[in-house]
Amino acid sequence: MKKVAIGVDIGGTNTAIGVVDELGNVIVKDNIMTRTDGDVDLYVDDLTLAIRELIKSVKLINSEIEVMGIGIGAPNGNYYAGTIEYAANLAFKGIVPLVKLLKIKFPELQAISLTNDANAAAIGEMIYGGAKGMKNFVMFTLGTGVGSGIVVNGDLVYGSDGFAGECGHTTLFPDGRLCGCGGHGHMEAYCSAPGMKRTAFELMAKYNANNSLLANKSFIELDSKAIFEAAEKGDKVALEVFELTGKWLGISFADTAHHLSPEAIFLFGGPTAAGDYIFKPAKESMEHHLLTTFKNKIQILPSQLKPGDAPIVGASALVYKELEK
Amino acid sequence: MKKVAIGVDIGGTNTAIGVVDELGNVIVKDNIMTRTDGDVDLYVDDLTLAIRELIKSVKLINSEIEVMGIGIGAPNGNYYAGTIEYAANLAFKGIVPLVKLLKIKFPELQAISLTNDANAAAIGEMIYGGAKGMKNFVMFTLGTGVGSGIVVNGDLVYGSDGFAGECGHTTLFPDGRLCGCGGHGHMEAYCSAPGMKRTAFELMAKYNANNSLLANKSFIELDSKAIFEAAEKGDKVALEVFELTGKWLGISFADTAHHLSPEAIFLFGGPTAAGDYIFKPAKESMEHHLLTTFKNKIQILPSQLKPGDAPIVGASALVYKELEK
Repeated sequence: MKKVAIGVDIGGTNTAIGVVDELGNVIVKDNIMTRTDGDVDLYVDDLTLAIRELIKSVKLINSEIEVMGIGIGAPNGNYYAGTIEYAANLAFKGIVPLVKLLKIKFPELQAISLTNDANAAAIGEMIYGGAKGMKNFVMFTLGTGVGSGIVVNGDLVYGSDGFAGECGHTTLFPDGRLCGCGGHGHMEAYCSAPGMKRTAFELMAKYNANNSLLANKSFIELDSKAIFEAAEKGDKVALEVFELTGKWLGISFADTAHHLSPEAIFLFGGPTAAGDYIFKPAKESMEHHLLTTFKNKIQILPSQLKPGDAPIVGASALVYKELEK
Repeated sequence: MKKVAIGVDIGGTNTAIGVVDELGNVIVKDNIMTRTDGDVDLYVDDLTLAIRELIKSVKLINSEIEVMGIGIGAPNGNYYAGTIEYAANLAFKGIVPLVKLLKIKFPELQAISLTNDANAAAIGEMIYGGAKGMKNFVMFTLGTGVGSGIVVNGDLVYGSDGFAGECGHTTLFPDGRLCGCGGHGHMEAYCSAPGMKRTAFELMAKYNANNSLLANKSFIELDSKAIFEAAEKGDKVALEVFELTGKWLGISFADTAHHLSPEAIFLFGGPTAAGDYIFKPAKESMEHHLLTTFKNKIQILPSQLKPGDAPIVGASALVYKELEK
């Protein structure tokens, strides 16, 4: 009998679904549209059908397979209630009781569980990835936004209402840059991929940098990949973007460390592909901003989850965490 | 049989010791000098003698009394190891294995446990005070410094090394005011009692405020009590000190809330005597800086522990937390 878990990653446009084995490998996967008409019941029907089809196909490969449950990563996912609540990027209005609806469709499954995507990534890292055996660590996902998932004593921190772990919205510079959430000066406005672009534009303005390799790109065109490529060619603006982003990440990581004293901080997402360009200044800045007690103890590590499959794999890990109880 | 716990609060000059009943009342208490010659063995002898005397005196009052254990609050106290490590304010050098040494002196006691004073205050609030029944809350102690203790799922967060909960040293303003720890821009440099004094001096400088009630006091003389008294008389500088301190506390509380999503944040210490002068702007600022998901959920509450006895009472609560295991 080979155990597998279903991982579901709900995004604004697509929902990715995969069957994941106990080592974190995706055996089969599929995509459905995340309905944009806001009809929850029809969406649950679509999702149920897609999951049933995947289970069928995986049982054709190996009839001994046992499905342990479904784990879901979704924006504004409330772990305690099993609901998606007022998610700005999804068409579903108000509070969607997704776990309850799926339990009706899959009464045979022991565990159906939901949280936000960054929390799912943290659990994925703990079950399948680089955080195996760690009891205290924090995951930061750097992308369009900055998400985070916090693990204390081997358990994810959900807080009083199921929504803990929004470190991307801690304040780095009071009254600083406008954040996507409407707040000001948040870490996300500086350390996300769009934050790096904003930094590049600030620096080009500061230095009147017509000679920068980034100077021929519009605000819409420029992305963190282009900044990385320019840095590789020695572009001064691009290199300073990485220095500053690393410095700011390090300040935030030190703040998080002063709260939680983790063994490690894991980074996931596009900008981490830049490797030492981002890890080195982040580590230096974190160490600089730590109390003596915490210095030279905390690792900053790249996530061991495969970039493409990570959201599915992370979500599927929720199932194993749930079955531990 | 009436259960009591011994609470020990180790400060740079004095060590306060008390016998605390199950409701958090101090039955008897005593003070000894914290040795300044750095001799740990002699200090443990002094401490043992004082504890034995207190137990004797309390058993004279009620022979039915059962001593459950000893809880210790100490700077740089490491809960996991039961040690005091490189405490700048104490004369003891290096790592002091205080719990181990006391276990030799009191082999009959079930629980001997140690942590830092802010963590002890958090546990005190949970066992005897306003956090009874709460599973997720954070305690901030405002005094010469800013300490903090974090409770998640009913347990104190010690982190990977026993030192978690140093929120006073998170960065409020990158490259801002010098902090006592040598860092820059830390919350403690703004929101502690000395931080308020520094703010008052900045404001007097800004406004050339010869007419302020605080203008006749030297930097050494001015304290947070004088600022409170001036605010009560309508002094503009003093009132703005509270507005700013509250604003900065609120930013920090929002940062902590975005990590942990607590039910409540408790405040303890001298500056909290100013009541609404500090609680009101802190609450407003926290709400302003919170993501929508977290707004109007988190209380900011004054500690219910009695100011004078709180360090002893908090430390004694460690014993009951230890016996829960």
